[in-house]
Amino acid sequence: MGDLLGVAVLGAGHMGADHIRRLDQVVSGARVAAVADPDVERAQQAAAGVDAVTVHADPVAALDAPGVAAALIASPGPAHEEALLAAFARGLPVLCEKPMVPDSTGALRVVEAEARLGRRLAQIGFMRRYDAEYRRLKALLDGGELGRPLMLHCTHRNVSSPGHFTSAMLINSSVSHEIDAARWLLGQELTAVTVLRPTPSSGAPEGLLDPQFVLFETAGGALVDVEVFVNSGFGYQVRCEAVCERGSARIGDEHTMVVTTAGSAREEVAQDYLVRFADAYDREVQAWVDATRRGEVTGPSAWDGYAASVVAEAGVRALESGGREAVELAPRPDLYDPCAGVSR
Amino acid sequence: MGDLLGVAVLGAGHMGADHIRRLDQVVSGARVAAVADPDVERAQQAAAGVDAVTVHADPVAALDAPGVAAALIASPGPAHEEALLAAFARGLPVLCEKPMVPDSTGALRVVEAEARLGRRLAQIGFMRRYDAEYRRLKALLDGGELGRPLMLHCTHRNVSSPGHFTSAMLINSSVSHEIDAARWLLGQELTAVTVLRPTPSSGAPEGLLDPQFVLFETAGGALVDVEVFVNSGFGYQVRCEAVCERGSARIGDEHTMVVTTAGSAREEVAQDYLVRFADAYDREVQAWVDATRRGEVTGPSAWDGYAASVVAEAGVRALESGGREAVELAPRPDLYDPCAGVSR
Amino acid sequence: MGDLLGVAVLGAGHMGADHIRRLDQVVSGARVAAVADPDVERAQQAAAGVDAVTVHADPVAALDAPGVAAALIASPGPAHEEALLAAFARGLPVLCEKPMVPDSTGALRVVEAEARLGRRLAQIGFMRRYDAEYRRLKALLDGGELGRPLMLHCTHRNVSSPGHFTSAMLINSSVSHEIDAARWLLGQELTAVTVLRPTPSSGAPEGLLDPQFVLFETAGGALVDVEVFVNSGFGYQVRCEAVCERGSARIGDEHTMVVTTAGSAREEVAQDYLVRFADAYDREVQAWVDATRRGEVTGPSAWDGYAASVVAEAGVRALESGGREAVELAPRPDLYDPCAGVSR
Amino acid sequence: MGDLLGVAVLGAGHMGADHIRRLDQVVSGARVAAVADPDVERAQQAAAGVDAVTVHADPVAALDAPGVAAALIASPGPAHEEALLAAFARGLPVLCEKPMVPDSTGALRVVEAEARLGRRLAQIGFMRRYDAEYRRLKALLDGGELGRPLMLHCTHRNVSSPGHFTSAMLINSSVSHEIDAARWLLGQELTAVTVLRPTPSSGAPEGLLDPQFVLFETAGGALVDVEVFVNSGFGYQVRCEAVCERGSARIGDEHTMVVTTAGSAREEVAQDYLVRFADAYDREVQAWVDATRRGEVTGPSAWDGYAASVVAEAGVRALESGGREAVELAPRPDLYDPCAGVSR
Repeated sequence: MGDLLGVAVLGAGHMGADHIRRLDQVVSGARVAAVADPDVERAQQAAAGVDAVTVHADPVAALDAPGVAAALIASPGPAHEEALLAAFARGLPVLCEKPMVPDSTGALRVVEAEARLGRRLAQIGFMRRYDAEYRRLKALLDGGELGRPLMLHCTHRNVSSPGHFTSAMLINSSVSHEIDAARWLLGQELTAVTVLRPTPSSGAPEGLLDPQFVLFETAGGALVDVEVFVNSGFGYQVRCEAVCERGSARIGDEHTMVVTTAGSAREEVAQDYLVRFADAYDREVQAWVDATRRGEVTGPSAWDGYAASVVAEAGVRALESGGREAVELAPRPDLYDPCAGVSR
Repeated sequence: MGDLLGVAVLGAGHMGADHIRRLDQVVSGARVAAVADPDVERAQQAAAGVDAVTVHADPVAALDAPGVAAALIASPGPAHEEALLAAFARGLPVLCEKPMVPDSTGALRVVEAEARLGRRLAQIGFMRRYDAEYRRLKALLDGGELGRPLMLHCTHRNVSSPGHFTSAMLINSSVSHEIDAARWLLGQELTAVTVLRPTPSSGAPEGLLDPQFVLFETAGGALVDVEVFVNSGFGYQVRCEAVCERGSARIGDEHTMVVTTAGSAREEVAQDYLVRFADAYDREVQAWVDATRRGEVTGPSAWDGYAASVVAEAGVRALESGGREAVELAPRPDLYDPCAGVSR
Repeated sequence: MGDLLGVAVLGAGHMGADHIRRLDQVVSGARVAAVADPDVERAQQAAAGVDAVTVHADPVAALDAPGVAAALIASPGPAHEEALLAAFARGLPVLCEKPMVPDSTGALRVVEAEARLGRRLAQIGFMRRYDAEYRRLKALLDGGELGRPLMLHCTHRNVSSPGHFTSAMLINSSVSHEIDAARWLLGQELTAVTVLRPTPSSGAPEGLLDPQFVLFETAGGALVDVEVFVNSGFGYQVRCEAVCERGSARIGDEHTMVVTTAGSAREEVAQDYLVRFADAYDREVQAWVDATRRGEVTGPSAWDGYAASVVAEAGVRALESGGREAVELAPRPDLYDPCAGVSR
Repeated sequence: MGDLLGVAVLGAGHMGADHIRRLDQVVSGARVAAVADPDVERAQQAAAGVDAVTVHADPVAALDAPGVAAALIASPGPAHEEALLAAFARGLPVLCEKPMVPDSTGALRVVEAEARLGRRLAQIGFMRRYDAEYRRLKALLDGGELGRPLMLHCTHRNVSSPGHFTSAMLINSSVSHEIDAARWLLGQELTAVTVLRPTPSSGAPEGLLDPQFVLFETAGGALVDVEVFVNSGFGYQVRCEAVCERGSARIGDEHTMVVTTAGSAREEVAQDYLVRFADAYDREVQAWVDATRRGEVTGPSAWDGYAASVVAEAGVRALESGGREAVELAPRPDLYDPCAGVSR
C-alpha cells in the first residue's frame, strides 16, 4: 500500500492514548501525525515515541498540522460537535468516539452539516459492529435462516461503576451500545422506550438506580429488552439473544477455556471491556484507516450517532417518568439512506 | 412400608391416564383404587390392567369407593372446585392438577374451605418445584451465596400450540408455571403485571398474539420477565436466569450430549414437556404419596393455586389493556403461613 | 399389574442396603421378601421397616424363604458364584452386582451353567447401560448417522480412592465399567489391552499407580482409551466421546446450572457416583423387576460379566508387564448370541 | 516507532503470499522489502501493490537486496536449511515456517550453526504459542494452581487432507504442532512415542492410515495422547485438555454463538486452520517484528525446531514398527537453555 494515512488524534485521555498506541503500533497503513489536548503535557506523554508527530493544545490547530489527512476524535463528548464541524470544513474524514454529540439537538446539527456537504465524512465509534461475535449474529440474521427477528434479549453488566456514574448514565452511556447494536442488528429504528427499576442492589452506590431493565419497541414491531447492571460485581458480560420466527441465536456466553477444580467446572468471565472487545477496537480503527485510504466512509454514520442520542434522551425521560416514552426522529437526510442499513 | 395408598383418580383424559400409569407402574407405595370419568368407556380403558380398581362416571362415587384413601384430580379445570370440596368433606388428601380452579373467586372459596378445616389436605400440581434443575436453583438462592435476587429472566417456548389456544392462554395456561415458579424461587408475592406484544410471528395461527413478553413486579422489589412463545417451532425450552446482587445462575440450557457433524456442534433440544419434565412428574406424585402416607401435606398449597389464578387474571387484563395491572390478593389465612414459603 | 415380585436380597452392606431401600420405596412392582447377610444384625437393620420380610445368615436359606421369586446379589464378589449357581438350581431370575465373578475361570463356570439351563436367568449390574446419557449415545451410534465408530475417548475420575484401593483395582474395579460400556456401545469384543503409567499424582497414596491410561483394541479395529484417575481431587467425572467416520458425540460434561460469580461462570461437578448415576440405578432395578414379571431377562448377560472379567484380568497383566496383552475369550454359547448385542 | 523493518520473504506460495499480505497490510512496524521465488511470476503476483519491493528468483539475492534487515522463510521445507544458513551468515534475524528442516540431521546442523554464532537469530513458526487459548492454558499451568500436569489429551482434526498426504505426514506435518505445543506447555522434552492405528475411516483415501492415535512419554513422566484425524469430514478441531494433580483445563471447544433451531442448539465448528488460528498468525508475525526491531529473538528457537523433527521422525518409525520408539536428542547447546522454556 502507498503512503501512511496521517491522523490527528484529538484528546489524549484514557481512550485517546489507547488510540494513539493502536494507530502507532497495531494498525497498519496509518500513522499519528498530530495530537491535541488542552492539557499539553498529557498530549506530549501520549505522543512520546511516535515519529514525526506534532503536539497541540488546540484541536483545530492539530487538524491543520502538516501531514494530517484524517482525524480521530477522542476528546470529551461536549467537545465533539465543534471538532466534527471543523473536520467537515476541511474535508477531513473523521472517526468520532461515542457519543457523537451528547445532546440530540447538537447531534442533529452535525447530521445537517454533513448532509449539506453531500458526502459522508464521519464514522461513529460504535465498535460492537466490529466484534466477531456480533458480526456473526448480524450475518446470521441477514441470511434469513431464522426468519424475522421478534425479540432481542440483551445483558450489559459491569463489575462496578466509576464514582461519578448517575442513574441516567446507565441509559446514555451503557445502554447506548445496545441502542446502536439493536438498530444495526434489526435494521429498524427504535420507536418507544420504557425503563423498569427493580430495588437497587446493595452493591450499588447509595442513590444509584442499578440495575435497570429497559424495553425498546421498534418500527418493525420487534421488542428489545436490556438488563443493565453496572455494579454486578461478577464480570463484564455483554450478551444478546435474538429470538426469531424459526430459531434463536445467542452470543456473549463465557467460553474458551474450561477449568475443572474441586466441585466445579469454571469458565473465565472477562472483567473489563478492553479485554472483551480488544479485537473489536483494533478492527474498527483498521477498517476506518483502510476505507479512508480508499476514499470511502463505511461504518456507523452521523445519523446513527444522532439516532442513538435521541433514543438515549427518551430513555432518560422514561427512567424519570416511569412510563413509556415515544422516540421522535427528525426526517432522515437522503445521504444516509443507502449506507445506514437501518429501515424505518 | 405398610399398606399401599389407595388413590381415586378423577379424570381419565391425557393427564389422568398418565397419572394412572404412574401410580400403577412407577410410583412406589400407592395403587389406583378407583377411576372416574363422565366418559365411562375412557375410564375403563385407562384402568385396564390395574388390579382391584373400580370405575365410575361420578367423581363423588369414586371418592366413596372401597379402598380409597386419597384423590388425584386430573379432570378439566371447571370440575376441580366441586371435586376439591367433596374431598375436603371426606377428609381425603388430594393432589389437584393446575389450574387449581380457573377463576380466582372459585379458587378463594377452596382456600376458605380448607382454612375452615384447619388443616391442609390439598397439594397443587405445580410440578416445576420437583424438577432437579429448579430445586438446585432454589437451593442456591436460599443458601444466600449470591445475595438477594434482583431479577428473574424466564423463557417459556413450545414448538407449537394446540388449535384451541387463545392469546389469554399464553398467560393463564403457559405463564402460570412461571407465576408459581417465581413466587416459590423468590419467596415473594407478585404485585403487578405488564404484557408487551411484539408483532406476532408468522409461525403463529392467525389472530394469536404470540410471542408475548410479560413483566411481573414483586412485593420485594424484584422484577420477573417472561418470554412466552408457544409457536417457536424450534423446541420446548424452559429457562430461568436469576440475577442476584453477587452473581447470577441460569438453568434450562440444552446440555447432555454434544454431537459434532460437518460444520457444527449441536445439542439436542427437547420437543415436549413430557420429555423435559418426566422426572419432575414422577417425583411430584411420589412425594405426594410419601407425605400422604405419613399423614402430611408438603407441596404447593391451595393458597399457591389461588395466588396463581389471581395473577393470571391480572395478566390477561394487562394483555388487553396494554398497561400495568396491579395484583390484589385476599388476606392469607393463617393455615398457609408456615407452609407456603412465600412472604409478602 | 399383578402381585408384587418377591425378591431375596443377598448381602446387606452399603450396596445391598441401598437396593433394599430401592426395592421397598422406589421401584414399583417389587417387594423385599428376604434378606441375607452373614452378619445377621446388619441384615436386620437393613430390613427394618420392610413388611413381611424374613432375615437370614445363609444366602441359600433366603432363596428358599417364603414368597421369594427372584434374587438380587449384592454380597462381596467372591460369594457371587455360589449364589448364582444356587439361584440357577432353583430357576430364580437374578440381578447380580458387578463383578459377576471376580476371576474369569469362575465367571466362565457361571456362563456354562446358565448355558446348560438353556435360558437366561442372570442380569449383571452394569448400570451405565441404563443411564440416560449413555442410552442417548448408544441410540445415536446405532442409528448410523455418524457412521462407524473409530475411537472412544473415555474419562473416569473419582475425587479420592478408599484406603484399600490397589493399582490393579483401577483396572478391575474402576475401568471395568468402561470395559462393559465400550463392548455395549461398539457391539464389539475387546481383543487387546495396554496400560500406560504416567508419574503418579502427588495426590495419590504412596505406591498407588494413579492415574493410568488404558488402551483397548477391539475386534472391529476400533480403539478405546480410558483415563482413569481415582484421586483427581476435583470430582466424579465420567465422560465418553465417540469419534466416528462422519462426526463425534460426547457425553458427561458438567451441565445443568451455570452460576456466574466474580470472574468465573461455573457448573457443578458431581462428587459421587450415587449423585451422577442415581437415576441409572433406579432404572436398572425397575427394568429388571418389569422384565422378570414378564418372564424375560433383558439386561447385561452372564456372558457380559464373563467378558468383563477376562478383559480386566488382561488389563492387570498389561499394567504389570508394561506391554500389550491379548484378550482370549472362550467360545460363546449360543444362548447369548441374540441378546448380548456384541458381535465378535 | 522508528523505521519500518524491511523483510525479505522467501517463497511466494500459499503461505508466503499470506505472509506478504500480513506484513504489508496487517502487521505494524514492518514492510516487505524483497520477495523471492524460483517461479518469478508467482513472486511478482504476490508482491503486486507493495511499495518499494524487489523481486528475485534466488533467495540469497533477496537477502542481499536493498533495505532488507530480516527474513521470513516460507519456501518448501527442503529449502529451509540453506536459507537459514545464508541468513545466519549475514546476521539477519529470521522467522522460519515449520518444519524448520524436514530431517533431524539437517535440523541439528542449523542448531549447531546458530550455536557457533553465539546468539539467537532464528524463530520457528510454531504459531500455536501465540494463540489466545493456548496462552491462557500455558499461563494457568505455569501459575501452579492446578499442580503438576499429568496428562495432555489432544485432538487434531481436519475436514479432509490434500491429495498428496501420506500416513507419515499425519505425524510429521499435523502432529508436529502438538509436539511443539506439548513441549512448550509442559516444559519437558518428549522421550518416547507409540502410534496406534485404528481401522481407517471409510472417509479417508485408500491406503491412508487415518485416524491415528499417538502417545508421547515425557522426561517428567507425563503422558501426551493425540488423536489425529485428517479426514474427519466434520471440522477443523484443535483441542487440548491438561489433566493435573488438582484440576483439569480444556481449550478448543466450539463456542461463541449458540444457534437454536428445530430440535437442536448448535455451535459453529471452524472448517479451516486459517479461521481458527487467524489471530495467532497475526500475533506471531507482529511479535517477531517487534522483537526484531528491539534486537531480540523471543519465540520458538532452532532447538525447538530440531526437537520437533527428532520426535516426528521417531513417530514415523513408531507408525511403521507398531511399537514404542525412544526419542534421542543431541546435547543441547548452552545458547538455548535460558530461552527455550523446556527442561529435560
